[in-house]
Amino acid sequence: MDAKTDIAGYMRGLAEAAREAARAMAAASTAAKDAALAAMAAALQAREGEILAANAEDLAAGRAAGLDDALLDRLELNPQRVAAMAEGLRQIAALPDPVGEVTQLRVRPSGIRVGRMRVPLGVVGIIYESRPNVTADAAGLCLKAGNAAILRGGSEAIRSNRAIAACIRQGLAEAGLPQAAVQVVETTDRAAVGELVRMEGLVDLVVPRGGKGLIERVTAEARVPVLKHLHGICHVYIDDRADPDKAVAIADNAKTHRYGVCNAMETLLVAEGIAPRVLPALAARYREKGVELRGCARTRAILPDVRPATEADWDTEYLAPILSIRVVAGIDEAIAHIARHGSGHTDAIVTEDYGRAWRFLREVDSSSVMVNASTRFADGFEYGLGAEIGISTDKLHARGPVGLEGLTTQKYIVLGDGHVRV
Amino acid sequence: MDAKTDIAGYMRGLAEAAREAARAMAAASTAAKDAALAAMAAALQAREGEILAANAEDLAAGRAAGLDDALLDRLELNPQRVAAMAEGLRQIAALPDPVGEVTQLRVRPSGIRVGRMRVPLGVVGIIYESRPNVTADAAGLCLKAGNAAILRGGSEAIRSNRAIAACIRQGLAEAGLPQAAVQVVETTDRAAVGELVRMEGLVDLVVPRGGKGLIERVTAEARVPVLKHLHGICHVYIDDRADPDKAVAIADNAKTHRYGVCNAMETLLVAEGIAPRVLPALAARYREKGVELRGCARTRAILPDVRPATEADWDTEYLAPILSIRVVAGIDEAIAHIARHGSGHTDAIVTEDYGRAWRFLREVDSSSVMVNASTRFADGFEYGLGAEIGISTDKLHARGPVGLEGLTTQKYIVLGDGHVRV
Repeated sequence: MDAKTDIAGYMRGLAEAAREAARAMAAASTAAKDAALAAMAAALQAREGEILAANAEDLAAGRAAGLDDALLDRLELNPQRVAAMAEGLRQIAALPDPVGEVTQLRVRPSGIRVGRMRVPLGVVGIIYESRPNVTADAAGLCLKAGNAAILRGGSEAIRSNRAIAACIRQGLAEAGLPQAAVQVVETTDRAAVGELVRMEGLVDLVVPRGGKGLIERVTAEARVPVLKHLHGICHVYIDDRADPDKAVAIADNAKTHRYGVCNAMETLLVAEGIAPRVLPALAARYREKGVELRGCARTRAILPDVRPATEADWDTEYLAPILSIRVVAGIDEAIAHIARHGSGHTDAIVTEDYGRAWRFLREVDSSSVMVNASTRFADGFEYGLGAEIGISTDKLHARGPVGLEGLTTQKYIVLGDGHVRV
Repeated sequence: MDAKTDIAGYMRGLAEAAREAARAMAAASTAAKDAALAAMAAALQAREGEILAANAEDLAAGRAAGLDDALLDRLELNPQRVAAMAEGLRQIAALPDPVGEVTQLRVRPSGIRVGRMRVPLGVVGIIYESRPNVTADAAGLCLKAGNAAILRGGSEAIRSNRAIAACIRQGLAEAGLPQAAVQVVETTDRAAVGELVRMEGLVDLVVPRGGKGLIERVTAEARVPVLKHLHGICHVYIDDRADPDKAVAIADNAKTHRYGVCNAMETLLVAEGIAPRVLPALAARYREKGVELRGCARTRAILPDVRPATEADWDTEYLAPILSIRVVAGIDEAIAHIARHGSGHTDAIVTEDYGRAWRFLREVDSSSVMVNASTRFADGFEYGLGAEIGISTDKLHARGPVGLEGLTTQKYIVLGDGHVRV
């Protein structure tokens, strides 16, 4: 099949091979899957030279095409990054196998036993951008969860991804698992993405990992389910019953621990009763770290140097050392602000008040809701998932950081002994 | 707003009101929700006369429009059916409230406590056909799960649905809950469905309840998540290590207990080693009940009177007293047949063999997989869900019979004491 001329046929071929492999993967033992992960890790390190040579070609082509430095940095592999990929696969091997777990097995009045068994989703497509390490990472997670994966990386990383895919195939072969359990899309034609996300019945889930443009395009075109993460406009609300020291520490950390990440705070809400006490201390910390502040009128009454925030600020994910600050009357106004301007990602309250803490936890409709903790904790590793395929801001299936469990589903099992319905 | 001329604006208005109501519903107490359900039930019975009068108008209009008898029967209400609606609401009130349950709350090495809290989905749209009792049923389930519901019934039942909606509003008012928590679409224009399923960000889930045509249309047009049930081609596989008496009882029950239901068996698979022993006994039972049999060549070698099955039979959901029978070499061929021809709804094995039972449970990729039990058990009530909004053959979010839990989602909660990320 010529991938260049018949994208639809090529993608359908991949998906049909994946479907077939998915049946074998669902039945594969934990030992076989872990052996494959270990063999992949070993192959990555043994074939480091090949991978770095392929990567050097990608980098050269990228420079020639005028890619910017940030993109080139994400694209670049080196011995440390190859070692990190291998280590990531070994960590996935060490996680408990989610497949086969039976929960809630109960006897019903009819005498049947009904429970739920965790099983793989089937065929999972991952669409990502320049970082080639996602190839190993996503392959490892899909494999451990018993799925067949179709990986579509960025065209600028195609040579690196092919070299990594060769190591993955070697690992599959050594463990006796089907080659089609992990397939890398070999064409850089953008139409391949459109085909992948429209193969209902063949592809069970698509996970776009990348910038807003990629995710919006996939969502608009998809006919298969998409696990997506649109954006993170995260809030910290400092209640007037907050401990001021905890409030300052959390609001500082949530903004300044890292700027370009989805779980960084973008808007700080402060109860008017505590604003005069915490804002000056916070402003000093932010100033020291070079964070630009934008505030409402009441904020500026306390911090006159702060530039005025516009309506657009409340809806902006800066991903930068910029913070908007709003003084609110109290928890009602804070919850209403988050409902209107938040993105359903992660929001935190700082308070010592028991009732308000629980009210915030119940009423704020975000994938992670926190009390007295920094929004930066919203992360698969911090939550104990072991690894993360992404953070979902959808409500269905998986919400928040998504690990192995999000790459599986549950079916009902019924155990009888000749039972019929009367 | 004129619903007849501005369907898009009208539907957006409903959805915005529902979104607002959903916030209040998410915070509503179990007591308030149960009081509303009880008040709705009382109103349905108190206003039975109004409901039956409205229903009589629907029936007269339906007869004039030439609706067939089956449709008119589904449309018809009588005092027993009104009482059953009220009883259904009382049963929903008696179910445990799924909202607010916190599970898996664990301390992480950083010191934060991470758990998952069950919360409502938000705004749920239900699209259904002629049965007006779905109006009460779906409203009750959505309300108990803390959602706001937008209900779009069949145009032939519009007067009945309006009368039932009046009782629902009365119940909401008596319990102090917002009127927009349950809204019935007042226009019969088909464009309303298209609008409802495309309001991303305002509608969190759409559940189509009805025939294949409705579900296919909704799926094709939807931009919001859809909980769907396409069709049920259910199998029973009689293994050669089956107890013949259990096998005959289960295969009889799975086919003949009710014919027009999605969990009825449509294809019987029998291992060649046991076929001569069980097929004659089964054929006698089916003949007695007037079930038409269609068989493969090996079936017809044992039952010469059976007409030949065509390839199309293996892919057909008869919903009628017709059964296709295939003799297979053993469990491998049975699992392969189900993977190729099944619809992922419900499949059962009859066997006394421990290893084969577990293999079938693991490898058959259907929403319900059973050992030694009739496929007819695949049902929300039989599984102990208390009530059912439908059976999902999707893999994501909810799979199999869907009760209150499928109308909710889980968010992460994080409890700290001033914790910041290092």
